[in-house]
Amino acid sequence: MSVKVAVILSGCGFLDGAEIHEAVMTLYALQKLGAETLCFAPDIEQHDVVNHLTKKTVLSESRNVLIESARIARGQISDLADFNPANVDAMALPGGFGAAKNLSSFAHDGADCTINPDVENAISGMIKMSKPVAALCISPAVVARLYNHPTLTIGQDVDTASTLESMGAHHETTGHGEVIVDRTNKLVTTPCYMLDATVPDIAQGAENAMEVLLTLIDD
Amino acid sequence: MSVKVAVILSGCGFLDGAEIHEAVMTLYALQKLGAETLCFAPDIEQHDVVNHLTKKTVLSESRNVLIESARIARGQISDLADFNPANVDAMALPGGFGAAKNLSSFAHDGADCTINPDVENAISGMIKMSKPVAALCISPAVVARLYNHPTLTIGQDVDTASTLESMGAHHETTGHGEVIVDRTNKLVTTPCYMLDATVPDIAQGAENAMEVLLTLIDD
Repeated sequence: MSVKVAVILSGCGFLDGAEIHEAVMTLYALQKLGAETLCFAPDIEQHDVVNHLTKKTVLSESRNVLIESARIARGQISDLADFNPANVDAMALPGGFGAAKNLSSFAHDGADCTINPDVENAISGMIKMSKPVAALCISPAVVARLYNHPTLTIGQDVDTASTLESMGAHHETTGHGEVIVDRTNKLVTTPCYMLDATVPDIAQGAENAMEVLLTLIDD
Repeated sequence: MSVKVAVILSGCGFLDGAEIHEAVMTLYALQKLGAETLCFAPDIEQHDVVNHLTKKTVLSESRNVLIESARIARGQISDLADFNPANVDAMALPGGFGAAKNLSSFAHDGADCTINPDVENAISGMIKMSKPVAALCISPAVVARLYNHPTLTIGQDVDTASTLESMGAHHETTGHGEVIVDRTNKLVTTPCYMLDATVPDIAQGAENAMEVLLTLIDD
């Protein structure tokens, strides 16, 4: 029996959804390590749609987080509202602005951010069952409030780190591929595209984080 | 000086654009092998927009191939109309229905398909300069007509293979990670998601194909 890991997506594209390279490298690392991956996303409208060529918001368009996330998951994805923590062994959240705009309001509200109710239920369920969670890139900001004084990293951005500390987290500065492991909270974080990065940098960060994540199962 | 490889995208999502895992694994393999990657896509409307959750066509929506491809390329992408084969050493085409619906009309017209003029110019330019091209998944069908009796693979689909043979190609049946190398034409092909596959299968196929592609530069 392979372990099952939920991967929580937030759309498809780093400016308004899940960061695609981080999402694919998370799935790759988990499957390479022998885990079964189960993708989930909330069935909600995206906060916005951004043209990734011009980087401008497209006011005339709206897209759905679950439907766009299905592009990364090749249609093999479920509504996060149906997530049951009893059915998985661990969870991973890739980054991208979708984490900070769709899964939570961190991008606009900082320390006062709210968390999407399906996301909060899913992560709170993991915490209650003492199951490990990995958060890449900016997604530690989504989960920070739900943990008791977590130790985590979002890389080297001083302002974001300071906001997270004001939310009760302890931030550690990291470089490419480095992983911060909060063993008490069973929370694993790594910076990925919070730093300038190549695709191999992202692959290394995801692989290092997923390796640690799997060691925390039944730890 | 690292070698430069053009990666031709056809949208973002396997049912109406570029296959995301193949595109990311192509970029990953090339960068890991020390190549510089330069993404291109044609500035045209997609043939259609497909909801990747329901797999149904969304008749009310239209999307642009270049703008959607920019999601995979994180905005670092150029209009294929501006492509100059003198500026690169090799080219790679990931698959997905976008290759067969946006880059060409193969999905609907089979052996009678037309090729997008920017795509045809770009690949013909590579052929004239004797520079190598790798085509993954269904994208060998995009390039087949432009080569002189190429030897290639699209995996194990008998009907598609037969159509390609009627277009003058010689098809070889392959499994995961296997690469067909036509040294005369400098054409490299591998099946990827033309077979049922895991993400590690796609990574292996892309890596094997890109390794061979780079050996054909200045060969």
